[in-house]
Amino acid sequence: MPTARPDTLRVFSLNCWGIRFFSQLCTQRYEMIGKLLGREQHDIALLQEVWSERDFLFLKRKLSSSHPYTHYFKSGVIGSGLAVFSKHRIQDALLYQYSLNGYPYMLYHGDWFGGKAVGLVIVDIFGLKAHVYVTHLHAEYSRAQDEYLTHRIVQSWELLQFVRHTSCGADLVVLGGDLNMHPQDLGNRLLRSHTGLRDCYTETDTFDGCEDGHTLIADNHFTKKQDLVPFETGIRIDYILMKGSQRVSMKCETLSTTKGPVADKPFPYSDHEALTAELSLLRSEDSRQHGSSDALAVSEQMDVVAEARAVVKEGLCQTEALRDKAMHLMFGGLLSLLLPLALAFLPCFCSFSTLGLLGAVCMSLLLSGALLYLLFTAHIKVLKETEDQMMLTSNDLQTKLTGCRLSASPSSDGSPDLQPLSPFKQEE
Amino acid sequence: MPTARPDTLRVFSLNCWGIRFFSQLCTQRYEMIGKLLGREQHDIALLQEVWSERDFLFLKRKLSSSHPYTHYFKSGVIGSGLAVFSKHRIQDALLYQYSLNGYPYMLYHGDWFGGKAVGLVIVDIFGLKAHVYVTHLHAEYSRAQDEYLTHRIVQSWELLQFVRHTSCGADLVVLGGDLNMHPQDLGNRLLRSHTGLRDCYTETDTFDGCEDGHTLIADNHFTKKQDLVPFETGIRIDYILMKGSQRVSMKCETLSTTKGPVADKPFPYSDHEALTAELSLLRSEDSRQHGSSDALAVSEQMDVVAEARAVVKEGLCQTEALRDKAMHLMFGGLLSLLLPLALAFLPCFCSFSTLGLLGAVCMSLLLSGALLYLLFTAHIKVLKETEDQMMLTSNDLQTKLTGCRLSASPSSDGSPDLQPLSPFKQEE
Repeated sequence: MPTARPDTLRVFSLNCWGIRFFSQLCTQRYEMIGKLLGREQHDIALLQEVWSERDFLFLKRKLSSSHPYTHYFKSGVIGSGLAVFSKHRIQDALLYQYSLNGYPYMLYHGDWFGGKAVGLVIVDIFGLKAHVYVTHLHAEYSRAQDEYLTHRIVQSWELLQFVRHTSCGADLVVLGGDLNMHPQDLGNRLLRSHTGLRDCYTETDTFDGCEDGHTLIADNHFTKKQDLVPFETGIRIDYILMKGSQRVSMKCETLSTTKGPVADKPFPYSDHEALTAELSLLRSEDSRQHGSSDALAVSEQMDVVAEARAVVKEGLCQTEALRDKAMHLMFGGLLSLLLPLALAFLPCFCSFSTLGLLGAVCMSLLLSGALLYLLFTAHIKVLKETEDQMMLTSNDLQTKLTGCRLSASPSSDGSPDLQPLSPFKQEE
Repeated sequence: MPTARPDTLRVFSLNCWGIRFFSQLCTQRYEMIGKLLGREQHDIALLQEVWSERDFLFLKRKLSSSHPYTHYFKSGVIGSGLAVFSKHRIQDALLYQYSLNGYPYMLYHGDWFGGKAVGLVIVDIFGLKAHVYVTHLHAEYSRAQDEYLTHRIVQSWELLQFVRHTSCGADLVVLGGDLNMHPQDLGNRLLRSHTGLRDCYTETDTFDGCEDGHTLIADNHFTKKQDLVPFETGIRIDYILMKGSQRVSMKCETLSTTKGPVADKPFPYSDHEALTAELSLLRSEDSRQHGSSDALAVSEQMDVVAEARAVVKEGLCQTEALRDKAMHLMFGGLLSLLLPLALAFLPCFCSFSTLGLLGAVCMSLLLSGALLYLLFTAHIKVLKETEDQMMLTSNDLQTKLTGCRLSASPSSDGSPDLQPLSPFKQEE
């Protein structure tokens, strides 16, 4: 089992292809992914397309000892699909949902329903402040006739703006995910040139993986060969990017990918290949100050967050009740559709037009219910995400408060270092 | 005419109540607001509820010499209503649209259709990096039965998260806007305690304005007295907040509000009172480094942004065409509704049910058209906002490039200061 040296950070990224009832062998693959993560003990694992919260919870249970800190980003109707597992404490999280993400009527593409976003977690790694981003951009369904190019460019822009405006206090920055863009695609160049993020694949001296770093390959059991045309051997659309700061210089020591088939298993982990980067961190200056907060102010912050969390929880209950009502409306509409159907079998009972009108009324009930259901489902995702972020902040404040008390206590050794009360986990 | 000392920043904030065809005397009030801003020469004016782009453009023309730098934030179906006018160069802009903002079916409240958001502009003020935020939170329609409390708390949370994660490199931070919360409301306490922003009203020694700093007062021509119950004299819901940094300490020297009626005018500027804060800036350390960028890298960044802008522009044209199609569908549905109406006047031509069915089909055409129209309108707002941000970045890069060339030129005096080519404006 590889063990991380204090100055080495091992980062993993995988698009899990976790669409329940659609993606093949989902349960078995999550089992394999869980085992892989538990065995490999990466410092941080960045997962995309974990669309089902149930699958996230499965991984969370499975990795509770190896990766006690997790965050599952919630947005849109289905969710963002983004999850982070970390060996190091997650101090804070922030989500930016992309403004454009396909169209609701493109049901067979479905990107619109997943609230595609970029998630940021701030992680304390060996006393350094790491800003770790995970994202998943809109898919490219046709390279020749890419009707979503504009949406992906806007997403790239929002991603780079988010990264450059939220990473200024970071000691190190890591971004992992499925960008759905080839290395030299415009959005990719935009992102790299404006954030200063460097591509681990081009930076590393030691690469072990698929030809040209491909992460969607022909030799993957789940890949439809026609999706790769005209790139028969594969394409590279998943990335780990990184940059250091004035205080830390970063280098990608090794980068590896999975290579389709997995030894002793009949199928791969996903339809994408996973990436693992080993990043070395060299501190150019170790005089980083630990913020010493005033215990009273921290305590006040905790109180007000607790109050706000209570309001959000209450709102969550109310919105869940509204969603239930929308579901009843939807089912009411569905059931009432039986009426014109039943009447249709009573000959001459009423005209075709009457049946049609009745059907239209029932359909509009069904449709209204469905739209409201989508709306409230998306609201619930936002409320849960907010509550999770508030809890992270509470936990971080609790840690700070303990630090304040320790440093204020006469029996303390006076160290300004902030000690956590206990390893705590980010709950759902 | 007050003139700003180099170490003094004058900030203005006003909710303009600019709902065309609904807000009273809109045109005349914008005329007054334009005159006020032109005369008072604030460094930065933060406006909310400038719902109509036409009104923004009117102000922009009017203030082209006093405030050559502007940004109008676009989001949602109607827009964010947020506008910034600045005497100082706006280097960059970023928008965060709140995830929750009321319900689309609450047509008579209408908040959902305005993409309520927080806008950030990064402004170069006397060589200092000022992060200036403008925002407008969801209205409180009933204090006793506040059905939007949760939404406003989530917005407060998102606002504070956005501010604290995007302000870390700032020399000074200013936030102005209509928070729709009383000073001690939970969301307000949350915001202040977690960002460290200080309320100019409580901080200043010299206040000149309405009693208790109220910004919604009974003595305003446009205020409905019943909206204030149980606060007969008024409420304070508009704010200018600020904080300094390690490099700059900030103090609010004076704060003033308008007081309802305006001298020589038959009515006030808005249904809200305007705020003006005079903030003194004291540099604790003047050794701020100017980033010296590599001309080649800057030039490459410019090229790639230009390419991306072209894609966004192209996407904008396509989306405008889609919106037009949606409008045709909507009008088609509307016109086709005339058919069942006409048929209804032809006795016994067809049954009531047939008419009903026909009507239902036409209605669903109309409804689909309307929904698609809303969707594409919101998309267009996003595309325009992205294009504006890209242009700001291009302009800023152009300035940097000129700086690089000047400092690289043998005839240059070697100053690393970046000189703009010419005062340029943020175009629509």
